[in-house]
Amino acid sequence: MTEHKFNDDAAIIAFVRRHTRLFADDAVLKVSEIGDGNINFVYRVAEPGGNSVIVKQALPYVRIIGEGWPLSLDRNRIEAEALVLEAEHAGDWVPQVYHYEQPLAAIIMQDLGDHQNLRYALIARRKLPKMAEHLGLFMARTLFHSSDMYLDAHQKKALVKRFINPDLCKITEDLFFLDPFCDHERNAINPPLQPAVEALWQDERLKVEVAELKYAFLNRAEALLHGDLHSGSVFVTETSTQVIDPEFAYFGPIGFDVGSLIGNLLLNWCGQHQLAGDAAEREAWRDWLLVQLEKLWYHFSREFSRLMQHKTTDLSLQNEHWQQRRMLQIWQDSLGFAGTELIRRTIGLAHVADLDMIDDAALRAQAEVMALHLGRELILERSEISSMEALVDLVCQLGD
Amino acid sequence: MTEHKFNDDAAIIAFVRRHTRLFADDAVLKVSEIGDGNINFVYRVAEPGGNSVIVKQALPYVRIIGEGWPLSLDRNRIEAEALVLEAEHAGDWVPQVYHYEQPLAAIIMQDLGDHQNLRYALIARRKLPKMAEHLGLFMARTLFHSSDMYLDAHQKKALVKRFINPDLCKITEDLFFLDPFCDHERNAINPPLQPAVEALWQDERLKVEVAELKYAFLNRAEALLHGDLHSGSVFVTETSTQVIDPEFAYFGPIGFDVGSLIGNLLLNWCGQHQLAGDAAEREAWRDWLLVQLEKLWYHFSREFSRLMQHKTTDLSLQNEHWQQRRMLQIWQDSLGFAGTELIRRTIGLAHVADLDMIDDAALRAQAEVMALHLGRELILERSEISSMEALVDLVCQLGD
Repeated sequence: MTEHKFNDDAAIIAFVRRHTRLFADDAVLKVSEIGDGNINFVYRVAEPGGNSVIVKQALPYVRIIGEGWPLSLDRNRIEAEALVLEAEHAGDWVPQVYHYEQPLAAIIMQDLGDHQNLRYALIARRKLPKMAEHLGLFMARTLFHSSDMYLDAHQKKALVKRFINPDLCKITEDLFFLDPFCDHERNAINPPLQPAVEALWQDERLKVEVAELKYAFLNRAEALLHGDLHSGSVFVTETSTQVIDPEFAYFGPIGFDVGSLIGNLLLNWCGQHQLAGDAAEREAWRDWLLVQLEKLWYHFSREFSRLMQHKTTDLSLQNEHWQQRRMLQIWQDSLGFAGTELIRRTIGLAHVADLDMIDDAALRAQAEVMALHLGRELILERSEISSMEALVDLVCQLGD
Repeated sequence: MTEHKFNDDAAIIAFVRRHTRLFADDAVLKVSEIGDGNINFVYRVAEPGGNSVIVKQALPYVRIIGEGWPLSLDRNRIEAEALVLEAEHAGDWVPQVYHYEQPLAAIIMQDLGDHQNLRYALIARRKLPKMAEHLGLFMARTLFHSSDMYLDAHQKKALVKRFINPDLCKITEDLFFLDPFCDHERNAINPPLQPAVEALWQDERLKVEVAELKYAFLNRAEALLHGDLHSGSVFVTETSTQVIDPEFAYFGPIGFDVGSLIGNLLLNWCGQHQLAGDAAEREAWRDWLLVQLEKLWYHFSREFSRLMQHKTTDLSLQNEHWQQRRMLQIWQDSLGFAGTELIRRTIGLAHVADLDMIDDAALRAQAEVMALHLGRELILERSEISSMEALVDLVCQLGD
């Protein structure tokens, strides 16, 4: 795979010119590398003061781990194809793909240059009036339309086959469900947290439930998931919400995407307990976050239910009571997967800035203990937490 | 696909000679067609008094339905590959594959000429001392070794991809889960049964549970199933049990295979209530059948539990309590799928001789009502029936 890397900026520009018609022949184009460098190369190709596009090129391994963790370039195809499929039913909330080229493992797509990464917007307490609604609708529409409720049986199975994604799934299987629940070298644990973490490693009840969630992740091919729907995969303005980076896409349990977002809003809620700034402002923000959780679930569940009711094509599944049961299962799965996200982001390999930005290790540990505790509760009590209101009550109790 | 059919016996003999070394050059070989003709051509190629093999060739449609229901020849590849995989861990109970040829959609395999079809052995009340143990072990070993508990995550996903089997799955999706629960033209209903069937079509609670089972069949890629494990797919002698015809193989819920066999033993139990012969002998046979059910579950569950305990490679799933929960889930799924098999074999397209051999329509209806009733109970009460003993009690109550 030595051929896949662009030699220089001129090669990138030539690639973009060859496959898009966004730039005039005499436009002077500039290339800048803008990726965070975790896994891929990401370039912006822009005409100063004019149009611009993003070029995303995959590397054959996980950059933050090194060449010891090889990663199929096929993820780039999966990302491009997932973006195209998502756009069919949720085009308002994904960047447009202009071109995908398999030999180069490169995608040319819409530039979201005026958007901010949602994680940093949340850390900065930037209130986003449309974000929860957009994300709820994005999930409902992408997940429903790739499920057996909507697709015919042959289409669904052909898609399952196209989105078999072992390398990226393996990352989740290990980082979500294995490492944080044992003394694994990949974990990164804030020293004051060590006693709480060791208690977690002894928690047999919790391990049974985590095994159950892992088994669901491994086996339940319900819908084409984004697969990595944390707040770093979302870009926002006041009026626009864009979901990027579906390279982890595969057919899995619907609650995994929903739970990832719930978990990320809750991680910010935990972190804001100790982040810098005025205490009253922080508390007002945390209340706003809980309202966003409610809106997220409201819009997701209302839209998903509406789609089940009106667009289910499988005759056996056109059953109101079964559809209600399905919604309940998605809810409970979402809570469980939110719990694993809270825990793995606190003590696993890949932390989040919402917690890591708290400079003082002892204060950070307070927020982290909250995240661990909340994650454990969500996993263990997911069958008992009967509604979003009950979840918010539970969160408020823990935060006191 | 006009090329795939053999022109004549000489072509079949030449094919066998080319790919096996079982016959001497001067042996005189004879070809006879032995298939029941539902879907495929099946030939025996034999040297009178000497060796013999089976040649199975697929047609591009469902023979009993006609060319209006096309069926991918890929099922022949799936059958050959499933037989080879099953043989890795359960070689005592599957015929040996000598050769598979994709362009001809043909398999050359071991002849089981001295074996009897299990369905007809059961109808004839032929007691088979090893059958339940063999089938229990066959299922435990094939299912465990193709699950995420045993396979590494990459291997498992590669196999899931290889065994995507939309055409054959669609048959099950329709014939098990759709047709029998509505007034579908494919159904075949004994007229005296009509009132009982119409009551079934009004049973909303039942339809919810059937939708749940269908959703599991569509989504839960737990292990490589045989996929069509009724008593017609098993051949027996006193000491040998051979499972054939895995052309429906795909990754699905483990309880589907187990439930198919349970359902088929229960179908014979229902039919024997009215089949010809001495009443006392029939009742003794029915008691023997219930003992076989117990033995089947005993051997399956003991072996599957043993394999989980000793051979689970996934660290997260090496958890005794989770493994117990898994066993319970398999049990409940098995009951549910057994219920759908009882119902679809009674009023759906593909009946079984265990019931259809009862000549008198009114007497047959008595056995059929029993099968419907039992099927419904298994589906609705599968979470309440706590053990095989409880199941046997339930069956005995219904039979009184």
